[in-house]
Amino acid sequence: MSAVGLICGSGTLPIEAAELIQRAGRPVFLAALKGSATAEVERFPHVWIRMGEIGKLFRSLEGANVREVSLVGAVQRPALKDLRIDMGGLGSLPEITRLLAGGDDHLLRGVIKFVEDRGFVVRGIHEVAPELTAPLGLVGRRQPSAADVADIALAVGALRALGPFDVGQGVVAIGRRVVAVEAAEGTDSMLGRVTRLSKGGKLRRDGRGGVLVKTPKRSQDLRVDLPAIGVRTLELAAEAQLAGVAVAAGQVLLAGRGELAAKADQLGLFLAGVPVAEAA
Amino acid sequence: MSAVGLICGSGTLPIEAAELIQRAGRPVFLAALKGSATAEVERFPHVWIRMGEIGKLFRSLEGANVREVSLVGAVQRPALKDLRIDMGGLGSLPEITRLLAGGDDHLLRGVIKFVEDRGFVVRGIHEVAPELTAPLGLVGRRQPSAADVADIALAVGALRALGPFDVGQGVVAIGRRVVAVEAAEGTDSMLGRVTRLSKGGKLRRDGRGGVLVKTPKRSQDLRVDLPAIGVRTLELAAEAQLAGVAVAAGQVLLAGRGELAAKADQLGLFLAGVPVAEAA
Repeated sequence: MSAVGLICGSGTLPIEAAELIQRAGRPVFLAALKGSATAEVERFPHVWIRMGEIGKLFRSLEGANVREVSLVGAVQRPALKDLRIDMGGLGSLPEITRLLAGGDDHLLRGVIKFVEDRGFVVRGIHEVAPELTAPLGLVGRRQPSAADVADIALAVGALRALGPFDVGQGVVAIGRRVVAVEAAEGTDSMLGRVTRLSKGGKLRRDGRGGVLVKTPKRSQDLRVDLPAIGVRTLELAAEAQLAGVAVAAGQVLLAGRGELAAKADQLGLFLAGVPVAEAA
Repeated sequence: MSAVGLICGSGTLPIEAAELIQRAGRPVFLAALKGSATAEVERFPHVWIRMGEIGKLFRSLEGANVREVSLVGAVQRPALKDLRIDMGGLGSLPEITRLLAGGDDHLLRGVIKFVEDRGFVVRGIHEVAPELTAPLGLVGRRQPSAADVADIALAVGALRALGPFDVGQGVVAIGRRVVAVEAAEGTDSMLGRVTRLSKGGKLRRDGRGGVLVKTPKRSQDLRVDLPAIGVRTLELAAEAQLAGVAVAAGQVLLAGRGELAAKADQLGLFLAGVPVAEAA
């Protein structure tokens, strides 16, 4: 059986992913980026890679019988001058230069193509370790009310309607009314707005209630750019006096699910994965 | 020919409307609300009415041969205790009490029904004085670029998609990307957000460009609640480094059109009325 190759950036996500893949009975091989990945990668078959050691990366992956590769954890965007391109990478230098010249989306799409051109298949972390994403159903003990369920349905509808416009990672609905739509400002900023509107008496609400719903945007390539819910999201949702948070099951990262469930319980929020048709 | 009755709140809008109706060759009759309307109403056939003088209001309208009534200008929501209900209004007291107990939408819808139940037709100011709303085409001298036109089309599409969710009085699109969607926060707050995102380097934009598009929400009853563009909107759009503002022709108030056109020119903004199917 071929191994799953994880190109590992920072944080605990690469370690969680590696454990989940092994537990599912598949071999795993970690290519740990120096300066980003944690030392914990050494608990698994691994190689340390400097940014730019393209030749070493692909030789290691081949040597470990890797066919599928996933990029996990945050990586600082490298400056071209900091790259030490090794012999195996020199032939790709013009391609690498082009990649680094564009925006982030361009870079990520370029990296996928670059890796796939060398014969590997790039998989999203939600494919190789689906347990890292939201399951269908409740996480934590709190249950949404019937009114919350109606707000979830309304918000999911608004997000789907916005799909063709590449907007809509997040919507807040309260009392059957869409009160905030996320565009360029990000989820945290949107939740802050809801808190301010609520405190300013602008929301005609009856105590705590309403939901944040998060889904990927249509243009998001889930292989390299999965939306995520963290402890901070839950804290801001509680500050906005929402009843809970619902996310597209299988399409939104819930890293540290146990911790998130405990946090949701502590804040009195429900946290749920709901079915949302995957963006085309 | 029957006269158009204008129930006049504050501001210059009632006066502008009265002039436009007279110029179109129709008689006009102004019922001026004491404490709200300006003394300029006295240039036209008029009566002064205290809040609560329901009997006097309807008698005056009938005496002036009014069949169609329009509510123009801002009115402070009255407290029940401040109302001096006259003899003609006493029979309606339970109805009035119920009206004042609900939200603003409820109040306005109630006022329409109250007036129509007495045999009048309630018309929107956009119907009796369509010149007060945005015309189709350009207001002011500035022309949108081809890129601006593409942004307008994108924003109109997003607003229409959001129609069923009763969101979407405003959208800002920049560089073929929807960057802000207005929900409960209001247009001014949304424009402030775009300014902050832009100054914070979050918008990947190339100098000045992009548009604010405004349309009515689907649930808005245009007879009593027409969206409006004012000088302040233009100033905030300029601060957000937008190229211009487009609104649904015939469905958005441009009170003081000459002044707005001059302001748009001065700020280097285009201001345009564009066709948007009326909300159902």
